[in-house]
Amino acid sequence: MSTFKAINLIARPHGGPIGHELFEVVTKNIPEVAQGEFLVKQNHMSLDPAMFGWMSPDTESYIPPVDLGSVMRSSGIGEIVASNHPDFNVGDRVMGMMGWQEYFLSNGKGLNKVTAPLPDEAILSVFALPGLTATQGLYSIGKPQKGETIVVSGAAGSVGSIVGQLAKADGLTVIGIVGSEEKADWIVNELGFDGAINYKSDDIADQLEKMTPQGIDVYFENTGGPIQHHVFARMNAHGRIAVCGLIADYPKATPDLAPNWIPIIKKRLTVQGFTMPDHFGDVPALLAKLTPYVMKGQIKHRAHVLDGLESAITGLNLFFTGENKGKLIVKI
Amino acid sequence: MSTFKAINLIARPHGGPIGHELFEVVTKNIPEVAQGEFLVKQNHMSLDPAMFGWMSPDTESYIPPVDLGSVMRSSGIGEIVASNHPDFNVGDRVMGMMGWQEYFLSNGKGLNKVTAPLPDEAILSVFALPGLTATQGLYSIGKPQKGETIVVSGAAGSVGSIVGQLAKADGLTVIGIVGSEEKADWIVNELGFDGAINYKSDDIADQLEKMTPQGIDVYFENTGGPIQHHVFARMNAHGRIAVCGLIADYPKATPDLAPNWIPIIKKRLTVQGFTMPDHFGDVPALLAKLTPYVMKGQIKHRAHVLDGLESAITGLNLFFTGENKGKLIVKI
Repeated sequence: MSTFKAINLIARPHGGPIGHELFEVVTKNIPEVAQGEFLVKQNHMSLDPAMFGWMSPDTESYIPPVDLGSVMRSSGIGEIVASNHPDFNVGDRVMGMMGWQEYFLSNGKGLNKVTAPLPDEAILSVFALPGLTATQGLYSIGKPQKGETIVVSGAAGSVGSIVGQLAKADGLTVIGIVGSEEKADWIVNELGFDGAINYKSDDIADQLEKMTPQGIDVYFENTGGPIQHHVFARMNAHGRIAVCGLIADYPKATPDLAPNWIPIIKKRLTVQGFTMPDHFGDVPALLAKLTPYVMKGQIKHRAHVLDGLESAITGLNLFFTGENKGKLIVKI
Repeated sequence: MSTFKAINLIARPHGGPIGHELFEVVTKNIPEVAQGEFLVKQNHMSLDPAMFGWMSPDTESYIPPVDLGSVMRSSGIGEIVASNHPDFNVGDRVMGMMGWQEYFLSNGKGLNKVTAPLPDEAILSVFALPGLTATQGLYSIGKPQKGETIVVSGAAGSVGSIVGQLAKADGLTVIGIVGSEEKADWIVNELGFDGAINYKSDDIADQLEKMTPQGIDVYFENTGGPIQHHVFARMNAHGRIAVCGLIADYPKATPDLAPNWIPIIKKRLTVQGFTMPDHFGDVPALLAKLTPYVMKGQIKHRAHVLDGLESAITGLNLFFTGENKGKLIVKI
């Protein structure tokens, strides 16, 4: 085999579902491996909500959008199959931003070796973007204190499920917002959340009131949508809101407005957004914070694995429909 | 004279203008001054937007509302006319929360002596709540850096005018939002702001764009209203928003919604509310920060003085109409 497949972004989304018209599947020749380079065969790649930002034309975003005609950006994990690099050997497992393609030629920059004896799915689900994001946002913005109450939206998602489990291990009361009864059951009965609210039910305000009798100290926001207003209304004085994702708002041409700021004054709230690229320098510290929880068995995960490179395209829509069950991963 | 006047709050506002029906003017006997007490004749009292919070029934606010039937809460400055207190003498000038009344009996708690050789109006305009609030919010939340751009709403108000002058002295580009051409002229030509926008003009978005070509790093929010959306849209990455007041929203039964949070993520913004009662312990440090600017002549002020205790009642409406010119003070 001397060729491989890659998927280029050729148009930008304008709201609504992601379709094949935004991409082209191309066949490329497997490149020569020059001195100081190595070739990775990618085995699994990660799908993340951040991709909607990378695809959008907004130049104000935290990292530049993917250029039209270029390989779609993504992180993944693979095995080195050829090397002329002194520090990377054939058979080494590496992780990094390799994009939607079967092979990736690297000079080593931005790729890290994976030595943990865990399957690809576990690495991508916990120690990659989701776990780093959860750890960064929860501790630097949420500042959780034992005995407090945290609400996590997108609680069955890759980030939210880790946030909730970290907070639970730290002694908080943890309530998760999810989009199905199956997810509610999973976060309560498998992950140990204290409660779950299906945002599609009729009485979310009542449910939230019953589950947070002491009010809400920390809100980890992954979704947006109407639940945001209900949670915001129950924030306690000096509450902290970490704004991590707004998946319900991204596809809308005119996103819904947010709650009036009067409670931000009255309750002296802090609402703060963050994105991981600002904190890549902190990754060693974040991993040092996260790892003990994982080693103690306090962080469970589940991966939702799609099959084949091209499944990535329509797979992105699972974030909107909420039909994904766990971390979205594409097996190549 | 053995009696004095006081004004009690007897009903809570429900949106719309403040009227006499919310208050009763009562005549009281001047009390005996027991051991450890002293009597203050109040000469000037301050009107502040925070009063709308103190009058409202909301028990979630940062300090308890004024009880119905009690003297309306306010800060003021006066002179001791009788004393049986070892540390306070007849003739001493004192400042503190004395309420809407001509005389105030104190045991000394919460009152501070005023020794600066400045008129009452200057003390209440700069060294009381407005200056403390401006200093707290600007430095602890706004974190201004030389060369950055700050937008201040309510810029001709008692807090906003000090925020803008502090930021100007620190080397920022300072744009103020005001409600009249007269105020625009005052903040630019008297206070040295770099620009002013009358929010009642048609093209506020265009004006804001022209005056903030480098975007906006700090937003000191005193008013709310539609300008909030325009300023929010021009915030730079890592921008800070100090939410101090929302005078345009307070009288509304259903306050307007705020901008969607997507830019909070994309630009990693921090939106933080604050109120001074959380920071009364920091007053010495705040005064130490503020005083050098005042001594260098960098903080100008103007007082809008109403005449007579009862003028306080309808005087509060000047905050809504924006017709006050400078710090609202009642001369008793």
